[in-house]
Amino acid sequence: MIQEILPQDEQYMNYALVLAEQAFEEGEVPIGAVVMKDGVVIGRGYNQVEMKENPTAHAEMIAIREASIKLLNWRLTDCTLYVTKEPCPMCAGAIYLSRIRRLVYGASDDKSGYAGSLHNTVQDARLNHHVDVVAGVLADKSRDLLQRFFSDLRDK
Amino acid sequence: MIQEILPQDEQYMNYALVLAEQAFEEGEVPIGAVVMKDGVVIGRGYNQVEMKENPTAHAEMIAIREASIKLLNWRLTDCTLYVTKEPCPMCAGAIYLSRIRRLVYGASDDKSGYAGSLHNTVQDARLNHHVDVVAGVLADKSRDLLQRFFSDLRDK
Repeated sequence: MIQEILPQDEQYMNYALVLAEQAFEEGEVPIGAVVMKDGVVIGRGYNQVEMKENPTAHAEMIAIREASIKLLNWRLTDCTLYVTKEPCPMCAGAIYLSRIRRLVYGASDDKSGYAGSLHNTVQDARLNHHVDVVAGVLADKSRDLLQRFFSDLRDK
Repeated sequence: MIQEILPQDEQYMNYALVLAEQAFEEGEVPIGAVVMKDGVVIGRGYNQVEMKENPTAHAEMIAIREASIKLLNWRLTDCTLYVTKEPCPMCAGAIYLSRIRRLVYGASDDKSGYAGSLHNTVQDARLNHHVDVVAGVLADKSRDLLQRFFSDLRDK
């Protein structure tokens, strides 16, 4: 099913990219995420796995946690999550669990993407919640940032 | 591939069941998890989604977080995770990400299990880490506890 790109999608993805840049500056794989509800940012996150020695500290997880604190509710109904790269298996699972309505992502990930590339957890018809998905929003910017990070790493 | 049950598996699963009982007493879906390394408990968790209003506060996630803090390392190489119920999509993803070597679980979950039932994230050959899996250890005890919880809920 092809999902429609909304006028505000690029604006919010640009903010997720600012958070990805922050991860880059701190030596982390540059991925950023925001959770939006009714035009308000209610969750923000960027990848912090190395810094926090936490295998679950992905951008999406941190943004979802912040959003559930803001709403005093673990159900993020009517929220949209923007993330610069296609979610991994864990984050796709967290998006499904938190009942997020819409997922917008940038670059696809053919190595571990679980929102369409290797598997599609967020639209698995056997699970009890399904998420609308828009892929490819500002994908080039996200891919450029990731490539720059891994190229710098190789040069070290 | 059939995995061997080790002599200590029931002992550690019993401890995970004690943690599941704790969740039950606090009104949470009764699931418990422990992370073991060289015979030492380095992570413990039980489901706390409602209490913490956190969609990601599953037993496995809390146990993995505690273990990575104990080891000062996000890589839980050579660790075994025991959990009373088959992991959901998110937790299966976290187990893969944290490089856990071995997963032992109790009851299977045909509604959302992602370690063999609906899908098998932890043994997805296309991902860069694969986990040995043993299913069904003290499964009856885990299932009884879950059924008691949902039956109590219906009676309320």
